[in-house]
Amino acid sequence: MALSVDLNSDMGEGFGPWKMGDDAGLLRIVTSANIACGFHAGDADTMAATMRLAVEHGVGIGAHPGFADLQGFGRRQMQVPIPTLANMVRYQVGAAQAMARAAGGEVGHLKLHGALSNMACHDEAMARACFEAALDVAPDIVIMGLAATVMETVARDLGCNWAGEIFADRAYNADGTLVDRRQPRAMIHDAGEAAQRMVEFVKAGAILAGDGSRLETRIDSICVHGDSAEAVALAQAVRDGLTEAGIEVRPFGGQPL
Amino acid sequence: MALSVDLNSDMGEGFGPWKMGDDAGLLRIVTSANIACGFHAGDADTMAATMRLAVEHGVGIGAHPGFADLQGFGRRQMQVPIPTLANMVRYQVGAAQAMARAAGGEVGHLKLHGALSNMACHDEAMARACFEAALDVAPDIVIMGLAATVMETVARDLGCNWAGEIFADRAYNADGTLVDRRQPRAMIHDAGEAAQRMVEFVKAGAILAGDGSRLETRIDSICVHGDSAEAVALAQAVRDGLTEAGIEVRPFGGQPL
Amino acid sequence: MALSVDLNSDMGEGFGPWKMGDDAGLLRIVTSANIACGFHAGDADTMAATMRLAVEHGVGIGAHPGFADLQGFGRRQMQVPIPTLANMVRYQVGAAQAMARAAGGEVGHLKLHGALSNMACHDEAMARACFEAALDVAPDIVIMGLAATVMETVARDLGCNWAGEIFADRAYNADGTLVDRRQPRAMIHDAGEAAQRMVEFVKAGAILAGDGSRLETRIDSICVHGDSAEAVALAQAVRDGLTEAGIEVRPFGGQPL
Amino acid sequence: MALSVDLNSDMGEGFGPWKMGDDAGLLRIVTSANIACGFHAGDADTMAATMRLAVEHGVGIGAHPGFADLQGFGRRQMQVPIPTLANMVRYQVGAAQAMARAAGGEVGHLKLHGALSNMACHDEAMARACFEAALDVAPDIVIMGLAATVMETVARDLGCNWAGEIFADRAYNADGTLVDRRQPRAMIHDAGEAAQRMVEFVKAGAILAGDGSRLETRIDSICVHGDSAEAVALAQAVRDGLTEAGIEVRPFGGQPL
Repeated sequence: MALSVDLNSDMGEGFGPWKMGDDAGLLRIVTSANIACGFHAGDADTMAATMRLAVEHGVGIGAHPGFADLQGFGRRQMQVPIPTLANMVRYQVGAAQAMARAAGGEVGHLKLHGALSNMACHDEAMARACFEAALDVAPDIVIMGLAATVMETVARDLGCNWAGEIFADRAYNADGTLVDRRQPRAMIHDAGEAAQRMVEFVKAGAILAGDGSRLETRIDSICVHGDSAEAVALAQAVRDGLTEAGIEVRPFGGQPL
Repeated sequence: MALSVDLNSDMGEGFGPWKMGDDAGLLRIVTSANIACGFHAGDADTMAATMRLAVEHGVGIGAHPGFADLQGFGRRQMQVPIPTLANMVRYQVGAAQAMARAAGGEVGHLKLHGALSNMACHDEAMARACFEAALDVAPDIVIMGLAATVMETVARDLGCNWAGEIFADRAYNADGTLVDRRQPRAMIHDAGEAAQRMVEFVKAGAILAGDGSRLETRIDSICVHGDSAEAVALAQAVRDGLTEAGIEVRPFGGQPL
Repeated sequence: MALSVDLNSDMGEGFGPWKMGDDAGLLRIVTSANIACGFHAGDADTMAATMRLAVEHGVGIGAHPGFADLQGFGRRQMQVPIPTLANMVRYQVGAAQAMARAAGGEVGHLKLHGALSNMACHDEAMARACFEAALDVAPDIVIMGLAATVMETVARDLGCNWAGEIFADRAYNADGTLVDRRQPRAMIHDAGEAAQRMVEFVKAGAILAGDGSRLETRIDSICVHGDSAEAVALAQAVRDGLTEAGIEVRPFGGQPL
Repeated sequence: MALSVDLNSDMGEGFGPWKMGDDAGLLRIVTSANIACGFHAGDADTMAATMRLAVEHGVGIGAHPGFADLQGFGRRQMQVPIPTLANMVRYQVGAAQAMARAAGGEVGHLKLHGALSNMACHDEAMARACFEAALDVAPDIVIMGLAATVMETVARDLGCNWAGEIFADRAYNADGTLVDRRQPRAMIHDAGEAAQRMVEFVKAGAILAGDGSRLETRIDSICVHGDSAEAVALAQAVRDGLTEAGIEVRPFGGQPL
């Protein structure tokens, strides 16, 4: 059977008069779009415009909720009680569903943003609360999260639809965590190298860490960025590299683990 | 056939640590609750708690969107472009749907809040944009609006489900508009008088103005308030008066005009 | 020389249509008011009204900055970079100064709010950044903070004006920290007991912990609350108890440590 | 005596992660910077960075308050009660003063932003309330506003320091109002033409309307923009044109009218 993988990217990260990233450029490359839901970025107009574009390009729409922290772009950790977290996710998923419906599409997946995602990667209660909250609202939603982390464990336990993702531009530790950005070689800047690595990861069905070890996990999607011309070029290189290696780039299936 | 009418009230108007109104008291009296959606009041936790209470009391849940103006409680007019208005309504309706679903209920109706409602009562394009936006997201939603205003005209034209409301505590002009609050006798403070008037309006199937004229309109719901002990007492008096007059208090049917 | 102490309370904690606490009641009891600056509570109108009242009562005005988190009322910890913290404090202090000037008063002191205060009690870099930021804007401002904590250490080191505070309604551990609210007897609910304790602390010039130990520290102010009728009664009892014990209740001097 | 004029531009209009305009480019051209104060744009970090840059370039700092409407960038009219407007201006001016002080500068002038400015150009009560509010906080502040409008009338009446401005890229009607953007030739796109016009206006001491009429008024400043490379080039052309015509580009004096 032919190998395939999804390409996802965060989008719709403008707010009001402010733009961010080259969404139009990315929508020609990726198969899934994680769209900000108004709390850390992405007002309703931005959501509407981004989702319409995604529908036009046949790109899957995901709700991408974050902390209510515009100034910090949802990247600052906040200590939010679990029931509040759950309501925050429900609210944003519901808003995204409405915007998607009005754009002629639908929300297919959930991906947590920024600090909310970082915290939920390490905190099982947070991951569970956020995922269950999304499932309350959309029982068939595919939960997208970092492969081989607490998120995967929680998704397996919940039996929900799942898409495990890896990052095209980041080096990995042996336990599947990302190498700290402050370490040398934490970031992959070379497009060719990034593409080659992704081909290797997908073929191996595993995360290949810097120390040579491999961590088996189901890889459903690869996350790429669009915040600069280089980022878009890297995304394109990853897509081209996968295709050339015989790996089909198409939307994730979202099967339970 | 027995006469019947719905009683509605705005609820869930707290935010974060701040409370407003006696929601628990009102939920024992009304049959429909218009629940703030986070823009002018009502964060996700408040929405969740209010909707759970509404479900417990068998009270219908309505989305009650307003301008993004917490400080002004959505009561300050804002000049918002029509496409932005529509997205703003879609977003809030979607958020409300998600919160309702998680609370074991569903959003049955839409009612615009504050300045958004006041403006849409006089501006056909605004009313149309807001109602169509809600219908985009929820095709069967009942649009609740002021009976005998531009809102009614737009709802008739759209052929959508409709609930025309009147106010228990306000005097009316001959054209169906509310007497300006700054005029003497604009407000009905006496609970008995309010109850008696509502019985007369419902029996007449018309708004009875201060000058003795009558404006026929379909009356589906009566709006009462809960921002003070007096308001709750007035709401109870209206309910009791209706019942004693043989008018059943029950949720609106929501049929098109 | 006669003993004296200041009484302080948080105020101006409404926002838009929402009220919180009995500010008018408290202003007859306390000598210093910590006034929210718009980020966690207290819009500009609320600040103006509260400061006017404080000026009328001859009560000292303090800037009470917090995290930009209305829903969480500034009580949720946020991981904010140090330079951002400093700018956040500068901004709020400046806004408070303007509102005080327009009300015929002036900002005499700074007191951090909620999670910002809790974090700065344990994190020297945060305390230093916040205090220096306030001093950048107002070199003579009195820094009010929890006596015998990291805050006191930082204030001593900066050589700035200082007012060390203790809490009327909380039990203390031997190291000067507050007993966790979840512990039995963490809170002092009895007004007479609270008054008696405060007299003892002030006379001792020390925090008297539950285990009988004493921690010497300069006590310049006692913090009381006004969020309920009981709280206002407790504040009054503390004031009366101090006066009866011959301790003058008057604004802090604010001398450096 | 040699003619002189100030060049001003709006700056610091980013928010959180979002940037807007080429502030660094403009600061090499203009003599006054109108810096957003956090309500419609410009969080405290952005204010701090922009003010530091302004101080380094010897460019005058102005507070540029707007409506609390981030999504609408302060460009949507809001019906805000006069006392609330005044408090809103006081708050933002005070915040700007603090940020300026910490950056080693000071707030020299006030300029209203967007819809707030547009409304105050036509509404004397609004202009008066906003200007008096700024003067409450900073009695010597220079009020910058549109020359030959209601703003000028109010400033004359108040006897406050004043800087009347004209726009480099806009055509004028005979009554001194701007030609509606939807009209042909409302906008001046040619840099040479803009420069030539500004020289003529300044030499004439008058606004020269499209119909050939002239409206005498004191011209203290010319507003240029920096939202695109073309805008920055136009600003540079205006500056060069003025200099070549013997008109000195330097900060306004700010004398009363």
